[in-house]
Parts: sequence; C-alpha cells; structure tokens
Amino acid sequence: MKFTVDQIATILQGTVNGDGSQLISGFDKIEEGKSGSISFLSNPKYESYLYETKATAVIVSKDLTLKQAVNTTLILVEDPYVAFTILLQKYQEMTAERETGISTHAIIESGVSVGNDIFVGRFACIDSHSSIGNATSIYNHVSIGKNVHIGDNCIIYPGVIIYKDTIIGNNVVIHANAVIGSDGFGHAPQADGTYKAIPQLGNVVIEDNVSIGANTTIDRATMGSTFIRNGVKLDNLVQIAHNVDVGANTAIAAQTGISGSTKIGENCLIAGQVGIAGHLTIAPKTIITGRAGVTKSIKQAGQVVGGYPAVNNTEYLKRSALIRRLPELFDQIKNIK
Amino acid sequence: MKFTVDQIATILQGTVNGDGSQLISGFDKIEEGKSGSISFLSNPKYESYLYETKATAVIVSKDLTLKQAVNTTLILVEDPYVAFTILLQKYQEMTAERETGISTHAIIESGVSVGNDIFVGRFACIDSHSSIGNATSIYNHVSIGKNVHIGDNCIIYPGVIIYKDTIIGNNVVIHANAVIGSDGFGHAPQADGTYKAIPQLGNVVIEDNVSIGANTTIDRATMGSTFIRNGVKLDNLVQIAHNVDVGANTAIAAQTGISGSTKIGENCLIAGQVGIAGHLTIAPKTIITGRAGVTKSIKQAGQVVGGYPAVNNTEYLKRSALIRRLPELFDQIKNIK
Amino acid sequence: MKFTVDQIATILQGTVNGDGSQLISGFDKIEEGKSGSISFLSNPKYESYLYETKATAVIVSKDLTLKQAVNTTLILVEDPYVAFTILLQKYQEMTAERETGISTHAIIESGVSVGNDIFVGRFACIDSHSSIGNATSIYNHVSIGKNVHIGDNCIIYPGVIIYKDTIIGNNVVIHANAVIGSDGFGHAPQADGTYKAIPQLGNVVIEDNVSIGANTTIDRATMGSTFIRNGVKLDNLVQIAHNVDVGANTAIAAQTGISGSTKIGENCLIAGQVGIAGHLTIAPKTIITGRAGVTKSIKQAGQVVGGYPAVNNTEYLKRSALIRRLPELFDQIKNIK
Repeated sequence: MKFTVDQIATILQGTVNGDGSQLISGFDKIEEGKSGSISFLSNPKYESYLYETKATAVIVSKDLTLKQAVNTTLILVEDPYVAFTILLQKYQEMTAERETGISTHAIIESGVSVGNDIFVGRFACIDSHSSIGNATSIYNHVSIGKNVHIGDNCIIYPGVIIYKDTIIGNNVVIHANAVIGSDGFGHAPQADGTYKAIPQLGNVVIEDNVSIGANTTIDRATMGSTFIRNGVKLDNLVQIAHNVDVGANTAIAAQTGISGSTKIGENCLIAGQVGIAGHLTIAPKTIITGRAGVTKSIKQAGQVVGGYPAVNNTEYLKRSALIRRLPELFDQIKNIK
Repeated sequence: MKFTVDQIATILQGTVNGDGSQLISGFDKIEEGKSGSISFLSNPKYESYLYETKATAVIVSKDLTLKQAVNTTLILVEDPYVAFTILLQKYQEMTAERETGISTHAIIESGVSVGNDIFVGRFACIDSHSSIGNATSIYNHVSIGKNVHIGDNCIIYPGVIIYKDTIIGNNVVIHANAVIGSDGFGHAPQADGTYKAIPQLGNVVIEDNVSIGANTTIDRATMGSTFIRNGVKLDNLVQIAHNVDVGANTAIAAQTGISGSTKIGENCLIAGQVGIAGHLTIAPKTIITGRAGVTKSIKQAGQVVGGYPAVNNTEYLKRSALIRRLPELFDQIKNIK
Repeated sequence: MKFTVDQIATILQGTVNGDGSQLISGFDKIEEGKSGSISFLSNPKYESYLYETKATAVIVSKDLTLKQAVNTTLILVEDPYVAFTILLQKYQEMTAERETGISTHAIIESGVSVGNDIFVGRFACIDSHSSIGNATSIYNHVSIGKNVHIGDNCIIYPGVIIYKDTIIGNNVVIHANAVIGSDGFGHAPQADGTYKAIPQLGNVVIEDNVSIGANTTIDRATMGSTFIRNGVKLDNLVQIAHNVDVGANTAIAAQTGISGSTKIGENCLIAGQVGIAGHLTIAPKTIITGRAGVTKSIKQAGQVVGGYPAVNNTEYLKRSALIRRLPELFDQIKNIK
C-alpha cells in the first residue's frame, strides 16, 4: 500500500515542506530511515538524525527551527508523536485482516453461546455455560473454563488460560500465556507448621478496553471479585493478587506486583518492577516510579512517589542525593573532631 | 445450597446472637455483605463495617465488645478467621464436582501407567514411561514429558509444562502455565566470549502437599535434583533455579527468585519480590520481608530479615529511620561548623 | 553406559591418582557422591567434602595440595570445572535421542517450508508463509504465527508462543511457555484520561546460538525490530520490551527487565532482578550486579555497576558501608554537640 507525502499530510492536517509527490510505503525510526519510508521527530535528543536520515519524509513539529539543511521532505504538524501514532493506526486499520470462523480442531462444549463473526483457533477449548461476544477472536491453545463470559471485539492470544467464572467486557486484549483467575495465594497456617488452603471461591472481572500483557497473572478473589476496571493497561509478567481492584485507566508496567486486597485508584501510572503491599488504597492519579515499594496507603491524589518504602518522590530524590553525599559528611565529621 | 445460621453455628461450634433461623446462601466480605450472605470480622480495622453490613450473619470473636447496635445476626466463635476458613472449606467440599475420565482428545503414550478416577483434559499429552496416580486431574493443554511420575490427588491446571524425569508426590496443585523442569541457567564462558551450554542432567522432585502458582518456573538440577519439599507453597511468577532445595512448609510469595544451589530451611516465610543469591543456606523459620535481597547465608533460625543486602529486620528498620533523618543530620553539621 | 576412570582421564587429558580401572556410571555433586559416580571439586569452600565423599572418582585441580588422605580416585586436570563440563557434554551427546517426524496431531498450514529431519510434536501449529530449518524440534502445543522463519538445529519447547513475522536463527533454544513477539506496551494517553493503543508493526529478530528461558517475554518492535543478537543467553521470566537490542554474547539472569528501546552492548553480564530504564545505551562488557536499577546510559565499557540508581560498584559498596555506619555517625554528632 502506497501513499504520497501530500496524501499523508492531508490525513494528519499537516503542511508539506518539500516534494509532496513522493511515494511512501513504510515506517521507520528516524535513525533507521530508508528511502520510501516516513519517520517522525518528537524527542529533541534525536534531532541530529533529522539532518542525516535517509527517510523520504519526516513528521516534525511546526515549531521546529531547523539548524541546518535537510535532505528529506517535512510534514509540519502540531504534535509529531500523536500524528505518527494516528498514521500507524490508519495503516493498521487498512491492512488488518481478521480471520473468522471456528477451527474444526477447536472444542466448544454444547450450550456455549457464541456471537457473530467470531474466530476460534485450533485446539482452543471453551467449556460449558460460557459465552463469547461478537467479533471476538480466540486464538490457538486458549483454554476457557466453565461459566466464563467474554464480550465483543476481544482478542485472546494463544495459550491464554481463563479459569471458570471469569467475566470479560468488550474490546479486551489478552496476550499470550497470560493466566486469568488462578487461585489466590491463601493458605491458613496450622498449629503443626503445615498450611491448609483457603478456598478461593470468587472470580475475576475485567471491564471494557483493558489490555493485558504476555505471561501476566491475575488471581481470582477469595470471595467477591478481583477487578480490572475500564481501560486498564497491564504490561507483561505483572502479578495481580486476589481481591485487588485496579481503577479505570490505570497503566502498570512490566514485572510489577500488587498484593492482595489492594485498591488502586483511577488514572494511576505505575512503572516497572514496582511492588505494592496488601490491603492498601492508592489515590487516583498517583504516579509510582520504577522499582518503588509501596508499604502504606497513598491518600492524596496526584502525587509522584518513589523509593522503598515509597515516599513523595521529591523527598526520595533528596534522600538519594544526601546518601551520595555521605562520604563528604563522614569527612566533615572527622575534620570537626 | 442453603443452611440456617443455627446449622452453621453448629458446624463452627459457635453461639448465635440473633435470629438463627435465617437462611444463608453465600459468602461476602463484610464491606460487601448482602442479604442472604454470611461474613466475618477478624481484622479490627474493619469493625466499623459490622454496624452497617447488609450481610444476614457475621462471624465474630466471642470476646468482641460491641460499640453500637448491629442489624445482623452474630455467630460468636474463638477465632473468626479460622472459623470462616473452615466454612469455606466445608462449602467447597460439598459443592466441588470433580470430572473424571480421559478426553478422547488427550494423547497418552502406550505404556503410561494411570491410576483410578483420573481426569485428563483435551489436548493434554502424557509421554512414555510416565505414571499418574489415583484421582489426579490433568487439565487441557498440559504437556508431560517422558519418565514423569505424578502421585495421587494432584491437580495440574491447563497449560502446565512438565519436563522429563520430574517426580511429583501426592496432593500437589500446579496452576496454569507453570513450567517444571526446564534447563537450569548454566553456560560456561569460552575464551572467545561465547558460551557453551552446561548439560542439565538432573531433575525436579516435588514432594507431597505442595502448591505452585501460575507461570512459576522451577528448573531441573544440573546433577541430582531440585527439591520442593513437603507442604511448600509457591505463589505466581516465582523463579526456582537449578539445584535449589526449598524446605518443608516454606511459603514463598509472588515474583520472588531463588538462585542456584541455595538451600532454604523448613517453615520459612518469604514475601514477594525477594531475591536470594546462589549457594546460600537459609535457616529454618526465617522470615524474609518483601523485596529483600539476601546475599549471605542466614545461620540463626527464626530471624526476621529485610533490606538489601538483607540484615536483621530491626537493624534494617533502624537504618531506614536514620536515612530518613539525614536532612536533619546535614543541618546539624552545618550548624556545628 | 559405563567408562573406566582411565578412559575418562584420557578424554579430559588428565592424570589418574588411584585405581583407574574402576567403572563410572553417573555424575554426582561432591557432597552427594555415591559409589560408581564421578564428581568434581572446583570451589575451595567445598574442599572438606573431598575427604568424605563416597564418589568413586573426583576431578580436581592438578595444583591441589591434599590436606589429608582421600578414599576416592582423583583425576588431576588444569581446570576441574571446565573438565567436568566437557564430560557432561560428551555424556549428553552420546545419550541424546532426538525424535524426528511430524505428529499426525500437529497442524502445519499449506505452503509452510520445512527442512529435513525436523520434529513437530502433538497439537503444535505452524501458520502460513512460515519456514522451519533442518533438524529443528518444535514440541507439543507450540503456536507459530504467520511469516515466522526459524533456522536449523533449534529446539522450541512445549507451549512456546511465537507471534507473526518473528525471525529466529540457527541453534536457538526456547524454553517452555516463553512468548516471542507479543505487542510492545505502547498506549498513547488521550485528553479524557483513556489510552489508545499504538500499533506495534515491527517484529522480533533472534540471531544464532541464543538460549531463552521459560516464561520469558520478548515484545515485538513498534517499528523495525527488537534484536536478540548472536549467542545471547536469557534466563527464565525475563522481560525484553519493544525495540530493545541485546548485544552478542550478553547473558541476563532471571526476572530482569529491560525497558523499551534500550541498547545493551556485547558480552555484558546482567544478574537477576535487574531493571534497566528505557532509551539507554549500555557499553559492552558491563557487569550489572543483582537487583541493580540502571537509570542512565553506561558509556565506559567493562565497568561493574550496582545499586539503584546504579553507579560504579566500588562506589555503591562504599555507600552501603557508610549507611551501615550511620548509627555511629549519629552518635558522634551527639557527642560533638
């Protein structure tokens, strides 16, 4: 599929600076730009590549002041990153080929209700009393337990395991080998040092527009539900324990773990390798920096927190700076003495 | 299934305070209590919910002094948490429907020995020279290698991969997509900077009553065995490296990693996101707090350790407190000067 | 398979000290040595076991000075660990039985090109426009998307999911339930607090001689490729984000995560539970110690770094030592005042 630079500029409501008749057939990062491809410049630290890129066209900010001549055609827009993202989305919409139909190698138990235009891949299994909405894709080797309800336009990638009683909304994407609804980690200690498993009788509820990464695990509730609310985005290898409630539009990066019964507010941003203790409440719009360990509830919305135990990030950075100055401090004390 | 409050009180050897003839048909957390459900109050910080819950009955401590009137029927017991756990277990025993039989879509190699009342799900594969004990359930898409021996009453959830030569005892539960017996991470550096894989010729031995979480990985030993002893409980996304030995009744929370050849004592409690270096020995009954990094053997049993590098937790908390006081210290020095 | 101690010594170019005619039929760790087995002593902290081991033979350094009499036959070599590794490799080569053939329960789409002597296990799926090289093994329940190219002599263990467009070289080993090519975590924030997924149109390229651990996840690039270069070794539960480039012969231990677009040099050694932020460059031969958090590019090759934020390890250790001395410091200030 090919477009001219002019056609692309029209889609993006941008202005062309250079030869708008050239053909674009692909995308590249600016440092890897090839003839026939389009790129973008958003982060100023990549600006030097603009003057050497081999990309046919580059989307740049309309406010950019060139420091030297460029060999590429420019498309000037308000926000180059947003514009490029729109372009990628348009491209994906135009090129996506969705398979439909149910593989003869899939096993769907009798009584399962399935919508229109669904796709079910090979060796996928859907157990009894479950339902699958319209235009949902279930890929190879997916295992869906009893009484699971999945909405419309979902994509369940290969190898995903969904335990019984799970409820999934519309437009949900779950990447390969994620596990939804396994037992919460609940074991009651006995007098002789052994443990007795506490039955995990609840379920997992995933609302609309949620995205879940590869090999992520979400445990079912002991009672009630573990909730992943509207628009939540979870990266790979994230752990969500039983009875956790992740608020709408919260994004959580890879390898972060949320302990049992913790309630995370809406629109939080949680970086990678963060740990959050159990039974806490995290206020909306909290930003938790990478590798932080949160041990207490965060009550005031909109804070940035970091460190372990996590505190307000300004305080954390101050402390880190003071730790770096410890040698100096020890020297001063020595001098004073 | 419905029971009266009186019937439940009899099971729990508790005393009813209120209308014992009411019917109970479900469980709820006290803050989410609904008419017809039973709840419990154990953690005092939830006491306020007792006075507003809509649950028909609540299990409370016989020593609880009410601060105001309640609208719910109380069952007074010694330990409400234990009592509630017993109730959940009774309920689970009474409602559990175990499937039996071998799916026509499963593949069991000739010569595999299988016990009575086993269940084998669709597209499960069991390789030659293996054996499965009585009343064990192997769910969909499980892959069991050659010469694997699994005992009685085990539950192997969908997508679990068990490599050759693994030995698994009785009453073992393994959650979805866990991997048992993959190669240990052993690569011998060569003079030219490349690596040569060190053959991993050992196996994994999992004793009785072990529970293993979703997407957890346990590597086979280089020689000999990686051991997961009696009653061990592993949460999700835990990493157990080659030749590790996890002592009986030790519980390990999510995303913790144990490096190669480390030997962990019995009845240890290891919190989430902990890391333990290789070739160490951890004394029995050690408690390792969340996100700690253990770099040295722990010789004295029964300690609580925390921080990185991990030290006795009292010492760790003292240091953390002093770090918080660093700004004050820097000020004092300035004043002295 | 049995060999005499003399035969083994010949293979290892070592010298026998004791009865070379004895038969060896297995391997053991020195502390678990049994009659008929061979062991090795490399780490001096295990030397005491040499004098009590029941192993028939032990490979030791030709420079070892015995502190007391031994009951076992010794094979004296230059480097006992290397020699033992060679022995394990010889044993593995001689005993390995590679299965070949394509299971009648596998599904290979028409038009897939397959080499000679391949093995494809049960319920494995290979999608259209893909190719598999000679002598490659694809185990049970593997799902390979469209347009995936896999080279010669690869081993893809059960449950591995490989998304479309992935390219894999020769001699690559991928352990069970790893996920290759899932979408990068890219979501553009919208004005109303929701996110819009940024299409991930790139792929993953895995070069030759790479080893990938169980449940590890490698995301496809937004544009271009995520690269895992020649000879890279990844342990279990590692996260490689979109557009990362891991340099040749770099080894990364379990549960480490590399954020998007970071470029790691050749021959780096990255320990377990490390986190590396996005858009960084790590110089070749960098050693990153366990649990370190790298927040800035590392420009000078060959450094050892540790801590969070990671700094030169000598500096990190100094700081840690000073933190341990904080109580003393607070006391001194009190005295001075």
